[in-house]
Order: sequence, then structure tokens, then C-alpha cells
Amino acid sequence: MLLRCCAPAALLQSLRVRAAARSALRPLCCSRTAEAGEDAGRVASRVVGGSAGGELIDTQPVRGTRDFPPEELRLRNWLFGHFREARWRARRLRRPHAAQVSLLYGFEEWDAPVVESEALYTRKGGEEITGQARAECQGLCSLSPARAQLYSFQDKSERRLSLRPELTPSLARLLLGRCKGTPLPAKWFAVGQCWRYERMTRGRRREHYQWNMDVVGVAGVAAEAELLAAITSFFSRVGLCAADVGVRVSSRKLLSALLSRAGVPEAAFAPVCVAVDKLEKSSRESVLGELEALGLPQPAAQQLLDALQLRSLDQLAALLGEEAEAVRDLRALWALANAYGYQDWLVFDATTVRGLSYYTGVVFEAFDRAGSLRAICGGGRYDRLLSAYGGEDLPCAGFGFGDAVIVELLAERGLLPDPGRLRAPCDVLAPLDEGARGAAAALAAALRAAGRRCDLLLEPPRKAKTLAKRAAALGGERLLLLGGEVAPGSVRVKTLASFEETTMTVEALLASATQA
Amino acid sequence: MLLRCCAPAALLQSLRVRAAARSALRPLCCSRTAEAGEDAGRVASRVVGGSAGGELIDTQPVRGTRDFPPEELRLRNWLFGHFREARWRARRLRRPHAAQVSLLYGFEEWDAPVVESEALYTRKGGEEITGQARAECQGLCSLSPARAQLYSFQDKSERRLSLRPELTPSLARLLLGRCKGTPLPAKWFAVGQCWRYERMTRGRRREHYQWNMDVVGVAGVAAEAELLAAITSFFSRVGLCAADVGVRVSSRKLLSALLSRAGVPEAAFAPVCVAVDKLEKSSRESVLGELEALGLPQPAAQQLLDALQLRSLDQLAALLGEEAEAVRDLRALWALANAYGYQDWLVFDATTVRGLSYYTGVVFEAFDRAGSLRAICGGGRYDRLLSAYGGEDLPCAGFGFGDAVIVELLAERGLLPDPGRLRAPCDVLAPLDEGARGAAAALAAALRAAGRRCDLLLEPPRKAKTLAKRAAALGGERLLLLGGEVAPGSVRVKTLASFEETTMTVEALLASATQA
Repeated sequence: MLLRCCAPAALLQSLRVRAAARSALRPLCCSRTAEAGEDAGRVASRVVGGSAGGELIDTQPVRGTRDFPPEELRLRNWLFGHFREARWRARRLRRPHAAQVSLLYGFEEWDAPVVESEALYTRKGGEEITGQARAECQGLCSLSPARAQLYSFQDKSERRLSLRPELTPSLARLLLGRCKGTPLPAKWFAVGQCWRYERMTRGRRREHYQWNMDVVGVAGVAAEAELLAAITSFFSRVGLCAADVGVRVSSRKLLSALLSRAGVPEAAFAPVCVAVDKLEKSSRESVLGELEALGLPQPAAQQLLDALQLRSLDQLAALLGEEAEAVRDLRALWALANAYGYQDWLVFDATTVRGLSYYTGVVFEAFDRAGSLRAICGGGRYDRLLSAYGGEDLPCAGFGFGDAVIVELLAERGLLPDPGRLRAPCDVLAPLDEGARGAAAALAAALRAAGRRCDLLLEPPRKAKTLAKRAAALGGERLLLLGGEVAPGSVRVKTLASFEETTMTVEALLASATQA
Repeated sequence: MLLRCCAPAALLQSLRVRAAARSALRPLCCSRTAEAGEDAGRVASRVVGGSAGGELIDTQPVRGTRDFPPEELRLRNWLFGHFREARWRARRLRRPHAAQVSLLYGFEEWDAPVVESEALYTRKGGEEITGQARAECQGLCSLSPARAQLYSFQDKSERRLSLRPELTPSLARLLLGRCKGTPLPAKWFAVGQCWRYERMTRGRRREHYQWNMDVVGVAGVAAEAELLAAITSFFSRVGLCAADVGVRVSSRKLLSALLSRAGVPEAAFAPVCVAVDKLEKSSRESVLGELEALGLPQPAAQQLLDALQLRSLDQLAALLGEEAEAVRDLRALWALANAYGYQDWLVFDATTVRGLSYYTGVVFEAFDRAGSLRAICGGGRYDRLLSAYGGEDLPCAGFGFGDAVIVELLAERGLLPDPGRLRAPCDVLAPLDEGARGAAAALAAALRAAGRRCDLLLEPPRKAKTLAKRAAALGGERLLLLGGEVAPGSVRVKTLASFEETTMTVEALLASATQA
């Protein structure tokens, strides 16, 4: 709960006010304000900034994308630090257990280019992105609607390329390309920017960063259990508890069993998943309509939706039997969740199917229990993705965790830290006259060589009082002054928090820096 | 020199062999091998990987781009760690001065989207990228040759967009968009991926990562001196010295003074810089030809190239006078370099102009003294970029430092670390039978909560001997075993380096982890 102290409501409020005032500043924590005001901002910046030579360029980032000026990047680094490695927190906040989630779990980081061949996504990607399965089912042959959300383009060699919409297809490509070169099982993670060409609505941008963790080569639900442990660890570390956030869990095998009981052909499985995934957003009637359009007779569709209302594993077991794969998987997963100690976070919800076609087993998504936000993250088992790409299959499970919804949630709960407190602390060093600039440079070099962070002020010398204000604004711990009335070979040290001031020799200062 | 121990030639050799053997694996440290073999690799991967369902997708990344499987990403993180923050080294190698360069210098990190409006680069970008100035000078109006190196495309709303070729125009856009919102001077840094659509030759890919540091709002050469201090600090930290690497320094004001003496009109300045920048790669004759094409009479062009042969500031001062701006700037810069203590790295070289049109003052580039590689990094002062974008000018200086040439150089010198030693150390935890999986999960959760990195093996249980081999391959420090012949509530602890083995209670293990 230490974090709550770092993020007073006043700060978040001030962030929002700043965002409204300065259109180019689009803080990580208030995408809503910024997006609503985007077009106004676009106009305003033309008016405010234009001056010297010619018309001012559009200072907004490309529509649907964000800039990260330092105060925003501090927040991004704070978040990614929790995804990946947050050792700096361990130091600053002295929390012994504040180590990094992905590395703490023994996962290895990987990355791939943000630009991929379009074929990686149009071939057998997730329906949500390409809409292909739906198009196939509706007898539409045109691929153009299928590409509606892909951020695709053609390069100068007429290659069809896409900005990656997600990381999993790239992971599959890497695994296939490395053939037998990867010792299995492998536990890999990545944090990368992903792109979708979407209509711009609240909280939906065209780019977002996604944290992925994947377990490759493990057929059992031990993989899913480990992934869910990492997700719930992350939530705990940023100050959320099981009363704030839940994780809906189900299995595609459940839907598969229900569909085969209803006599629905195997081929309709993926598009039915996409239709069922809309249950939360759309009305039961509209989902029924979609299922009928997919060829399900109305009574079967009704029975299917009724069965999806089940809210306990016992009810599910009564319907399908204890030996049904879906039941066995979910029972084993719950037992492991108990062993890890995160069972309170889990909620069995048969309607959870996730929008991507490649899932084959357990699927899950984390949600805000207060209910207003979209899914925070989601994932599951995808054992047949590699064969969809023409390779040999490998059992895989993984999740994607975007940076948009979690930041909205943390901001709502006052759990985002103060960007001002995320600045790395340092000495601020300034010469009081131009003649002392060389001595200041030499001292900066020596302090840095001793491992001490040092911000050497490069502007023309100013008065000590002005410099103290500037050093405080820069987040400095101490202001070090040379020249002026300070004797050569000496340095005046002002501790900015306490206003204490002392003068010592440069040698004494360096000796103390080396010891620290 | 500690680093030299970490990167034995054998390792680098093995990396190269692996790269040749496995085409998809394109190590950071041997782009040459990988690129030469690219097309062969493309064919091979189709043959090796194809199997189950349908033709195998192309498992290579998009032409000119790299994948980063974990062993490559460890190297990338090592390099970026030095650019940005390398605290993990401070811990592992116990070097007290191994803190991070950019943060050590009090710079703040920023970022912008990798996709920008094309107009940001075609309007008044650097000639090297758009070739615009040259086209203008040659009376060509078409913009098409100007876009030769820009990785541009059109989105679905018919916006002309580009993958950013460099970071500086985005920085200018951010500064303009924030209007008066940025307290000045500002010291900012970024590490971002940049794209150029280039012919694929040795060491030239279509993407690379670039480390940038920029000082905004400082008119004097104190800014350039600080930037050069950071660059030389970086070189020292990765094991290079002033005998390995030099930094050529000059000033565009020098060329400007020479051109005005030769009666060359102001408008020809930028394209003349581009032509002169080719002196190292092209013959004197071909540069003379280019200068004549730009309208310089042959005698003036000859005099210009003669003057550029000057190799000392004293010679320069004799030609232009001590009061010439170029001379004063460079004298002041050398004095500061002396104070910082990096003067040995600097080489005055009047032919250094850099290929980008926006530089206005001091320019510099680091080079391998052995001479075979392209410039390692480059930068300088660009005081008029903001007005080129229609805003008010601000004095700025900065540099770009790519990840390609430095890695080639470090690999040549045996200074790249062993990726195996860059793995974060951890406990490897495994159940010896399926019945102990829950206990293993519980122990993993407890160790991680105590801040101890723990890789829980998720595959079906195997024999202790097999597990010890696997744990060693995973870079584990200790193998922790539960179940099998180990009594419930106890754990067998194998220290992998020493083969020592002991059995203790779970409580005792956790107590020691919490103390550590």
C-alpha cells in the first residue's frame, strides 16, 4: 500500500489539467481526456506554436499514437519495470520483494521487428483482427473486410507488410525458424508496441504496448497456472488486490463439447467463439442472430447460450461429466491456483472464450470487478498455431497484457505513482561564473566516474538562489556550486530537502562519493 | 578490462558458427555473416521447417530486419543498458562506477511513435535522407528521388506516413508541441528503432536502434562538450580506449567561412556540406565534380578542398583568425574536453561535416582508429531546425549512436560479453513426481514473494540427473527438488557450480531466502 502514498489524487488531477491545457502532452494516465480533445488540440497547436518561418508543422503525433515526453516516459518505465524488471524500486522503496515479475518467474525476454509480412496475420490469424473466419462462414470471399483492423502497407519492393497487431504470430515465426534450436519447454516474455487500425474511441488507440508471457512445450495446465501466477503477482505489486480485479477462466474445450452435443460442425467452431465472445458487449438476441447466421438452428443456439450461464465447476461437471477434458483441465488449474495461493482472483465463467481463433484450451481474461473497463489482459492455450503456419505443432500457452486499460484502472484507484518521484535522484552541479566551468566539468566527470548521478547545468551562470530553484525542479538531491565567492578547489553543497549548506574541498566531496 | 574476460574469442566464434548453421538466428554480433547468408537462409528454412499442414510460412523476419531471440536480446539489453542504465552490471560485476551513462549524466528519457507523418522528413529533413537540397540545386522539382531512403507508406485514410529514419525530427515536433511547457535548458535522451529503406549491403540493415542525447536551450559549446563526455564515457565503460576510437570534430561555421571567402551563395551551403561529407568515401575528383555541378567555379572548389586538409586548430586560426566563430567555438570545446579529461579522444578534422543539413555549428563523429568501419556515431549543433518546422528557434545539440557499427567493433575486439553469462541467475525448482507439483508451486510462490528469482519447471517430472543438466542449461544457481524420495515438507538443494547437495526443510530454505 506504499504506492497509494505516491499517487495523491491532487497529482492525478494536475496531470489531467495539464493534459487538457497542453494538447501535445498526452499522459499515459489520462488517455480519455486527451483523446476527446484531440481534434481541438490539433487546431490549437497550429495557433499557439506558429511564429517564425512558414506554417507550423502539425505537432501532434500520428492520429491514434502517443508521444512520451519525459514525465510520461517515467510512468511507462515504471509500468514496464513491473512487467519486466523493477530493481530500481527495490532500491528506492526498500521493499525486499519488489523484484521483477517476468524475470522473477525465470522467463527470458525476446523481441521481433514491429513490421512483419502481412501474410503472418492474414493466413490464419485471429478472427478479431482479420475477420477471415467470419467472412468464410458468411460465404464472403473478399479479403478486404478481413484486413479491416490490420495496419498494412506496401513497401517499395511491393511487399505487403503490416505493423504487428500482436506478438504471438511473431513468436510462432521465431519458433518455427529456429526449428529444433530452442530447448523446450521454453518460457519467454516480451514487451512490444502493437498496432491496430481501429476506429478511435475511448481508450482505443492505434498503438499500444503489450506485455506477453508464453510457455512453449508444456501440454498440461501447469503452464496456464504459472502464467496466472505471474499476472496476479503483477497486480499485487502495483497495489491491486483480488477484490479489485478478477480473472475469468474457462476452456475452449467446454464450448467445443457443448457444440458437438448440439451437432454443430467442427468448421463453425472458431466463428462461434468470436460470436460468443461478444456476449458481454452485445445483447443475447444479437448473439443469437449471429449464431443463426453461422448455421446453428435456434434451439441449439438457445441451449448453447443457456449452458454458458453456468457459474461453477460443479455445475459444469454435472452437465459434461468429471471425465470431460474441459472439466479435468479446469479442476487441475484450480488445484494449482490453490497451491500458488491466488485462487481468490479466479472466477469460472463459461462465456469467456477470447476473440482470437487460435486458442484451443484454457482461456482467461482479467477484469475490473467494479465493471466499467474492458478486459485488462487475456490469454490461454494455443496448441495448434504452429501447424496453421505449416510447421509441427507445439503445445503453447500465453497472454497479452496491454498498457491501456491497466493504466486507466490504476489512475482511477489512485495507484499511479507521482512522475516527479520517479525521477532518478542526482546531484545538480553548476558554476557560479564562466571561469569555473572547466572546474565544474572536471568535478562532474569525477563524480560520474565514482558512479554518482550528476546533472551539470550547461546554461550561462546564474545566482545561487535561482540555481537552487532550478535544481529542486530537476529533482536534485544536492546542489553543488563552484566559482563565484566559493574558493578555488572548494565546493558549496546545498542539501535541497533540508536547506542545509556546507562548503568542503573537492577532494573531500569526491572521497564521500566514492565511499557511498 | 573485466569485460574482456567475459567475451572469449571461442564464444564469438561459436556465435558465428551458430549463426551460419541456423539461418533464423541472426546474432547482434555478426550481422555480416547473417546478411551475406540471408537468401540462402531464406531457402533453407523453407526446407528444414516444413512438415505438417500446408506450406511453411517464411520464417525470416522482413528483409533488412532482425529478430531478437533471448540470447540476442540479452546482448541488446546489455548494450542498451550501457546507453541507458546498467545497474544490473553494478550488482553482478561489483564495479562501483558501473552506473548508467544517460542517467548518470542527468538526462531524462523520452520517446515518440515509430510512425510519423512523412511531411516531418520531406519538409526540411536532412539531405542524406531526402536528397531534397541536392534536387533543388540541380533544378529537379520532382520529390520522388528525395524519398529514396524514407520508409514511407500510405494508411487507410490516405495519410502519407513514414517509419522514422532518425529521432531528431520527432524531438523537434515534441518541443514545438509542448510550446513553453518544457523548462529549458533540457537534457533528453532516447533509445529507439529507426528505419531507412536502403540497399542491403554489409552492415546496412533497414532498421537499427539509435541512442540519442540532446541538449535543448544551450547556445554555448558546453552542450557539445557534455555530449562528447557522455560518448567517451560510454566507450570507456564497454572497454574501448582513446587508442581504439577517436572522435573527429569540426564546425559547419568553418565551412561557412570558407564558402563565403570563395563567394559561394548561402543557398548552396547545405548541398555543399552533403558533397564534402563524401570526401572520405569518394575520390577528390568526384567531389570536385559535384561541387562544380553545384555552381562552384573550379578554383574555388580546389581552394575549399585544400583548406579542408587542415589538421590543427592553429592552422585554422592562421587561416581564419582567432576571432572567427569556428575558431572560438573549437578552442572553447577543446578547453572543456581538457577539463573533463577526454581530450585524447578528439581529433580536429575540417572535412567532418556530417550528412544532415540541419547542423549549424560544431559537428562530430566517432570512428574506429583501425579504420575499416563506418562512423560509429555522429552529431552536432542544430540551432535552426525548429524554424524549419515553422516554430521559434532554440539552440540545440545532440547525437545519434546506432547499434550496428559499435557491435561490429566490439565483436572484432572481443569485447562483447558471453550471452550465457548475461542470463539473470535464479533457482530452478522442479517436482520429482506429479504429486509434488502443488508443493513446488507453493514454494515457487513463496521464494518469488521473498524476491528470489525462481524458474519453476512445468514439464512432466523427470529424474534428478536429467533435471540437474536442464537446470545448468537454464543458467540456474541452485536446483531445488521436491517429492520423490525427498520427504514431504523438505527440499533437496543442489548447488550447480559445486555439485554440493543438501536437504533442508522448506521453512529453513525460505528463512535463508528472506535474509539474503
